[in-house]
Amino acid sequence: MNMILRNNIWRCQRPSLMQIRHCSSIIKKARDKLGTLGDGQVSLHKDDATGIATVTLQHQQRKNALSGSMMVQLADIVEDLSSWETGKGVILQAEGDSFCSGGDLTTVKAISNPQDGLLMSTFMHDTLTRFYNLPFITTCLVHGKALGGGAELTTATDFRVFTNTGEVSFVQGRMGVVTGWGGGTRLVKLVGPTIALDLLTTCSKLNGIKASQIGLANHVVGAEKRFDDTKAWLMERVSHAPEVLHAMKRIVIAARDSTLNESLLNERLNFSPLWGGPANLRALGGNIKHK
Amino acid sequence: MNMILRNNIWRCQRPSLMQIRHCSSIIKKARDKLGTLGDGQVSLHKDDATGIATVTLQHQQRKNALSGSMMVQLADIVEDLSSWETGKGVILQAEGDSFCSGGDLTTVKAISNPQDGLLMSTFMHDTLTRFYNLPFITTCLVHGKALGGGAELTTATDFRVFTNTGEVSFVQGRMGVVTGWGGGTRLVKLVGPTIALDLLTTCSKLNGIKASQIGLANHVVGAEKRFDDTKAWLMERVSHAPEVLHAMKRIVIAARDSTLNESLLNERLNFSPLWGGPANLRALGGNIKHK
Amino acid sequence: MNMILRNNIWRCQRPSLMQIRHCSSIIKKARDKLGTLGDGQVSLHKDDATGIATVTLQHQQRKNALSGSMMVQLADIVEDLSSWETGKGVILQAEGDSFCSGGDLTTVKAISNPQDGLLMSTFMHDTLTRFYNLPFITTCLVHGKALGGGAELTTATDFRVFTNTGEVSFVQGRMGVVTGWGGGTRLVKLVGPTIALDLLTTCSKLNGIKASQIGLANHVVGAEKRFDDTKAWLMERVSHAPEVLHAMKRIVIAARDSTLNESLLNERLNFSPLWGGPANLRALGGNIKHK
Repeated sequence: MNMILRNNIWRCQRPSLMQIRHCSSIIKKARDKLGTLGDGQVSLHKDDATGIATVTLQHQQRKNALSGSMMVQLADIVEDLSSWETGKGVILQAEGDSFCSGGDLTTVKAISNPQDGLLMSTFMHDTLTRFYNLPFITTCLVHGKALGGGAELTTATDFRVFTNTGEVSFVQGRMGVVTGWGGGTRLVKLVGPTIALDLLTTCSKLNGIKASQIGLANHVVGAEKRFDDTKAWLMERVSHAPEVLHAMKRIVIAARDSTLNESLLNERLNFSPLWGGPANLRALGGNIKHK
Repeated sequence: MNMILRNNIWRCQRPSLMQIRHCSSIIKKARDKLGTLGDGQVSLHKDDATGIATVTLQHQQRKNALSGSMMVQLADIVEDLSSWETGKGVILQAEGDSFCSGGDLTTVKAISNPQDGLLMSTFMHDTLTRFYNLPFITTCLVHGKALGGGAELTTATDFRVFTNTGEVSFVQGRMGVVTGWGGGTRLVKLVGPTIALDLLTTCSKLNGIKASQIGLANHVVGAEKRFDDTKAWLMERVSHAPEVLHAMKRIVIAARDSTLNESLLNERLNFSPLWGGPANLRALGGNIKHK
Repeated sequence: MNMILRNNIWRCQRPSLMQIRHCSSIIKKARDKLGTLGDGQVSLHKDDATGIATVTLQHQQRKNALSGSMMVQLADIVEDLSSWETGKGVILQAEGDSFCSGGDLTTVKAISNPQDGLLMSTFMHDTLTRFYNLPFITTCLVHGKALGGGAELTTATDFRVFTNTGEVSFVQGRMGVVTGWGGGTRLVKLVGPTIALDLLTTCSKLNGIKASQIGLANHVVGAEKRFDDTKAWLMERVSHAPEVLHAMKRIVIAARDSTLNESLLNERLNFSPLWGGPANLRALGGNIKHK
């Protein structure tokens, strides 16, 4: 039965094979093109002791804008994380005093036409949707400006922690474009259509206080110890066994993105393998026999 | 035409026949198993004069935890309510100083394995989804602690009234499990994925004030006259003719759980039978002939 | 490729052909019946210089209640707006000191039976859903009372601007009916099922302050210069090129009404034609060649 449960959970969380097949050739093509473009790095640090991974944007000379090669690195990092069975949490942060200023201009200039825009957009949607659906508790640490595509990145995590310099601004309209990394869709899911449309059309700047008023910022930390304080805050949310935490997140994902009936089915299929399982028996004091 | 309208409304509110067939054998099996387990009672009082029913959990020695036999009684009560044509509102409450502490340990120990977990979870999903979709205005009266499965129960009503001792806490994670009565799904629908994930992972305690800040508590009453005050508050929401109130609730259900187009179709099909109907004509002063 | 993109965007935004065919005969029949009923007018002023259109209800002797003929005029106005390629924003307002008191009693009396109710409701759903999906930034200017169907009208725009006399009240229950212009569905999408059910069952009055507390009012203006101030507020939200603004709105519409995957596909298809397009190149300083 566990096999059936596992397959059903899989089915609830993943797009159909046809959708995967349809997109995979586009993504392959995008990867080939983007991988050669620009500087900068995205690094991954997985701490097996705590189960917390840190993803860091490293492109300070461009305010941590994403080059094509950084997009490919981010895709590979998400792939790596998706098989981390003991993982629990992820912090998405950036080096220096800027969070991310969107797409790097060198890359942008090299692909500035609709066809390549569709390639790049499809590639980033694939990466960020897989990130969005990781069974971990994720937060970004917004220190400095998150502009355009950078603002979109902040919508891909479960939570958003701000420092006093943290600022999110959807400036795409001023650049004569719109959200292309899925940030428009995820912003509406987070704050509703009215506030989302207001932010997209006004390009207004959200610091931590304003962001918290609309539910976009969930915690504030001091700039100096920002990483340690964010980690401590996240640790309070990942105290459970990995399989319990993964089930919680999968339940929230399905409820966020599926119909009521699909989400309830998913909840049953995530609940039952844990019932009478090791973590449950430990909590009950071990005085129950597992049939 | 009324037959067509009625069938269409039915079709909008109910799962497909295949879904029903698929589940019915599981539910039968679960009922047989759960019905023999544990003490405690769930009582139903229907007041035909006001159209308000009261469902009361009675298992004080176990802080009103649900035994298997109470689960079956709750299922039967929902079945009873679903055919109450003049019903308008429901208060879900508990005896004594605890709202509900989840599943009763005697029952839990007897079914502590994944297979039985899936049975129990499917049975409770069926009951609580039917309760969730009753065409009445429903509220729970949270006096004392609502823990684990008890917290999940509070998400199945339209409103939540708290006393000063009322406290909701999703402690499933501490028990090494996750929500299994549909409470994860319904919590996300109520407060959004961010707050829901925070509550599930931190197991934090929500009293009336904190719950009202996130939209989970809708009214506060004093402990002493809690039932009368809750009933008075609910009466203000059920002053309409039953058929009008049922249509309002069905419109909100479809908008909550369906796509825009399905929900609009449902709204038209609930609106039109009332238009020029008895309650409408009474309100218009009776000076319109019903063709 | 632009043709493919355009067709796909179309497919994401529009109901299927079958749905259109199914409804078109009902809508034709409703138009014939409603068009002959009652007085009053709905006027349209399109300002090509600013891209802002103003739709004004003119039926002061009936507190701007919609007669059948006004419903038909509103449908024609939405049709007109839907082909306004340089349009950016819409203000929905009313003459005098009342916003709209719902359906006009003369019309109501002439069609007061379920069959005609379904006709009228289907006609208004068609009009308001097309209005709801216009690729413009829309706001209503609520000055005076918006009652019943008038309250429903205020849910069809992206934003709601209130004056000090502005007041929204879903009084349908007191008239022995429910929302029939799609306002129940849209209200739930705007404020969630709990608050929506409260407003529908209590028929409570929302002035600008109360409405802003639940996210239903987005701006307040003085009564005297209400139109100019609303226009100035809207102008801050439509500073982008029409094709950029239309894409923003389409992204928000799909995220509001579609599944995550459909909405992301729609976002990619709206993003890519703008990438490297005229507005984007202008913003980038024109130093990029369009391939």
